[in-house]
Amino acid sequence: MENTYDFGLVGLGVMGRNFILNVADNGFTAMGNDLDPEKVQALIDEGGNVDKVNATVEVSAFAKALSSPRKIMLLVPAGKVVDIVIESLLPHLDKGDIIIDGGNSFFTDTDRREAYLAEKGIHFFGAGVSGGAKGARKGPSIMPGGSKPGYAAVQPIFEAVSAKYNGEPCVAYLGPKSAGNYVKMVHNGIEYGLMQLTSEMYDVLKKAGKLSNQELHETYKSWNEGRLQSFLVEITSEIFAEKDTLTDGDLVDQILDKAKQKGTGKWTSQNAMDLGIPVPSIDIAVSMREISALKDERTVADSLYDRPEIATMAKEKLTDLTEKALYFSYIITYAQGLHQLADASKEYGYDLDIAVIAKIWRAGCIIRAKLLADITDAFTEDSELPNLLLSPSFIPKIQDTVDAARELVAFGAVNGIPLPGLSNSLTYFDAYTSTRLPLNVIQAQRDYFGSHTYERLDREGIFHTEWEK
Amino acid sequence: MENTYDFGLVGLGVMGRNFILNVADNGFTAMGNDLDPEKVQALIDEGGNVDKVNATVEVSAFAKALSSPRKIMLLVPAGKVVDIVIESLLPHLDKGDIIIDGGNSFFTDTDRREAYLAEKGIHFFGAGVSGGAKGARKGPSIMPGGSKPGYAAVQPIFEAVSAKYNGEPCVAYLGPKSAGNYVKMVHNGIEYGLMQLTSEMYDVLKKAGKLSNQELHETYKSWNEGRLQSFLVEITSEIFAEKDTLTDGDLVDQILDKAKQKGTGKWTSQNAMDLGIPVPSIDIAVSMREISALKDERTVADSLYDRPEIATMAKEKLTDLTEKALYFSYIITYAQGLHQLADASKEYGYDLDIAVIAKIWRAGCIIRAKLLADITDAFTEDSELPNLLLSPSFIPKIQDTVDAARELVAFGAVNGIPLPGLSNSLTYFDAYTSTRLPLNVIQAQRDYFGSHTYERLDREGIFHTEWEK
Repeated sequence: MENTYDFGLVGLGVMGRNFILNVADNGFTAMGNDLDPEKVQALIDEGGNVDKVNATVEVSAFAKALSSPRKIMLLVPAGKVVDIVIESLLPHLDKGDIIIDGGNSFFTDTDRREAYLAEKGIHFFGAGVSGGAKGARKGPSIMPGGSKPGYAAVQPIFEAVSAKYNGEPCVAYLGPKSAGNYVKMVHNGIEYGLMQLTSEMYDVLKKAGKLSNQELHETYKSWNEGRLQSFLVEITSEIFAEKDTLTDGDLVDQILDKAKQKGTGKWTSQNAMDLGIPVPSIDIAVSMREISALKDERTVADSLYDRPEIATMAKEKLTDLTEKALYFSYIITYAQGLHQLADASKEYGYDLDIAVIAKIWRAGCIIRAKLLADITDAFTEDSELPNLLLSPSFIPKIQDTVDAARELVAFGAVNGIPLPGLSNSLTYFDAYTSTRLPLNVIQAQRDYFGSHTYERLDREGIFHTEWEK
Repeated sequence: MENTYDFGLVGLGVMGRNFILNVADNGFTAMGNDLDPEKVQALIDEGGNVDKVNATVEVSAFAKALSSPRKIMLLVPAGKVVDIVIESLLPHLDKGDIIIDGGNSFFTDTDRREAYLAEKGIHFFGAGVSGGAKGARKGPSIMPGGSKPGYAAVQPIFEAVSAKYNGEPCVAYLGPKSAGNYVKMVHNGIEYGLMQLTSEMYDVLKKAGKLSNQELHETYKSWNEGRLQSFLVEITSEIFAEKDTLTDGDLVDQILDKAKQKGTGKWTSQNAMDLGIPVPSIDIAVSMREISALKDERTVADSLYDRPEIATMAKEKLTDLTEKALYFSYIITYAQGLHQLADASKEYGYDLDIAVIAKIWRAGCIIRAKLLADITDAFTEDSELPNLLLSPSFIPKIQDTVDAARELVAFGAVNGIPLPGLSNSLTYFDAYTSTRLPLNVIQAQRDYFGSHTYERLDREGIFHTEWEK
């Protein structure tokens, strides 16, 4: 049993168990490790054949069981646990072994760990894994970066287990250092934005269109058969169809409207601000999760203020408007996230190929969508595209849908239905496509009170005015 | 000349020079220090009497000149420079001396420095100073925190030099540790929000109302005579009246529409996300400065997309709408910033009194406004108010103006005039006052793909559904 298993995995939670079973399904032998004997036993039971997939609570037995160079993936919670697991593994490893962090580690942690382990002769790299529990089992999108020789050793395994899009594996080496974790972070930021937008359309369809859950199910289902085809639209359709097992009604109506977060969306927004790249459709999705948490304050505030009476809109018109508005704002959200990646690539030296990233997001991951095939094409055509909105192929998609977004934002504003993700997508678009913005006044204010100087439209140079006479 | 000066100041840039002259005006003797002999000489010349205000390039002479305990304020750029200046001072100081950082230092830096200097027996505290160059000269708002005995020693000087509101000094001890720098950071975040909103009203008045700069000047001037009375509205009015010295026209039309930033707004947004407090009116102001910087991309994008033809609106109606919308969104922006302060107070142990903060913002600082007197009253009445929007005195102010905000957001959306600050203020309000938000769907999605569980409306507990059949 020694030195025979092709692949090791630490952390046999739902993601880890599913990932290792996926590895075994693809003809590789795999050994799992977890401190919890129940999880170890559960994997052995589910695997059914210990020659193919085995597990142990003992780190030394785990390490001994792996063939050389050892390929060990961690699927454990981001943060200190990753460091603790690495330290526990180190005494049992040899030079040339490979550790892969498959969790949502913050990218600077990955850079630190890679440098630390490189000194010890261990290849370390972060590889974001997206697709949820089912993706891990049936084929996730995998976003590796970091040590290139390290990746080369696991490439056959990752390509086998990953999702496939038209036969192409949804995994590719993305760049040096923490490129993999960074791309996964922004993937999740985009995910926050898309989820917020998807929920806003539900809100307006329900409040102004009076759609039943069955009609919502059908609406999202039909959207998923068109240009909006995507994992999130698909599962939302299924969510509306879910019956409650504890009451007579539909489950969606009983779920508390507090959406939690684990930090990757927040990190995306915070880091975009450090880079100076605007991602307001992601920022607002983070804010909305925060507002959702303030349920008690919201309930009090609701009782204090009058709300406008909500006008009803014909279902057909409203489903048409919302379909277009969702398509429009999905595009804008991808555009913002990819803009951030393009800038981070320069800032952190990742040398990212955005077309490759869009390609491996086409299947397996949470933000997979028909749109990503078009995005892949746009960046394949022009790898230096600074922003998706500048791609000739996206202009007609936007032109076809922006007026619906305008109408719906206006409707939400007048009727008191908050559509913050949609309105941020629209104002981003309107600002990004404005040669002139009113921020000349802001720069004048800054010069007025802080002598911060300004530039001029009509000539080069730096100017300052003594505003106060 | 030894041990005689009451107050020392390092960093004789425009803020430092003005602040020290202000100290001298108020009957305290003051000694300045700067590495630049020209700045030293300029202060001596402007001071006119070296017995009252003097300056030197020599750190040792500077330290020797100060009476005990030395009270030394730093007005130098935030970051490494502060540490360098502190190190250069240390050999010349005695236990019990006081160093005050008057710059926009990041609050965790202030905590670090306070702990470091406490070990050496030096009192150190951060004191945010707002009011720009003129404020520093004539009376700023000062936001000190940290060492209480340290503050007590400079309190008479700070109270003398600060702005006065109905005779009350706009300075108060705010809380331990970095409370002063933190409060100043959020002050600046609010400032970003207010500036963005002020510029948006200009945009819509100009584009849809076709107001001339003279009319804009008069409009903002009249606003400044009403409930919108504030420093920012006042100076904006003056900005519109400023003639260009290089062309025949008005200066505002020649200023490049790129608004720079020095980081305090960004820090406010990033830290609010760490706290989990939504401040979308501030976030979007940061984003808009970033978008403004993308002038070249904006110009290209503008040429690629059709814009709606902008409907004109009667000037009288539009000035009424914009006045109300600006008042509404100013309130929302203050509410968000103060919400952040209330939460930071708990998180960082600042024990802030929001009423006191609003009080010392009523005069001297950049965000001073008539509204702050009302805000002071609201928090004096209820010091535990979680959010300004829950104050009974603010309900009529919002009810009176929110419909104008609705109409204007709708107008901007339909006509392609980006009003992101206003729309974020409105959607924040609509979400904050909603008992039910559509984020039940987001939590359902999270449970669907990530088994993240959910709570229910109808019973206690944590639930998970096997969504996929």
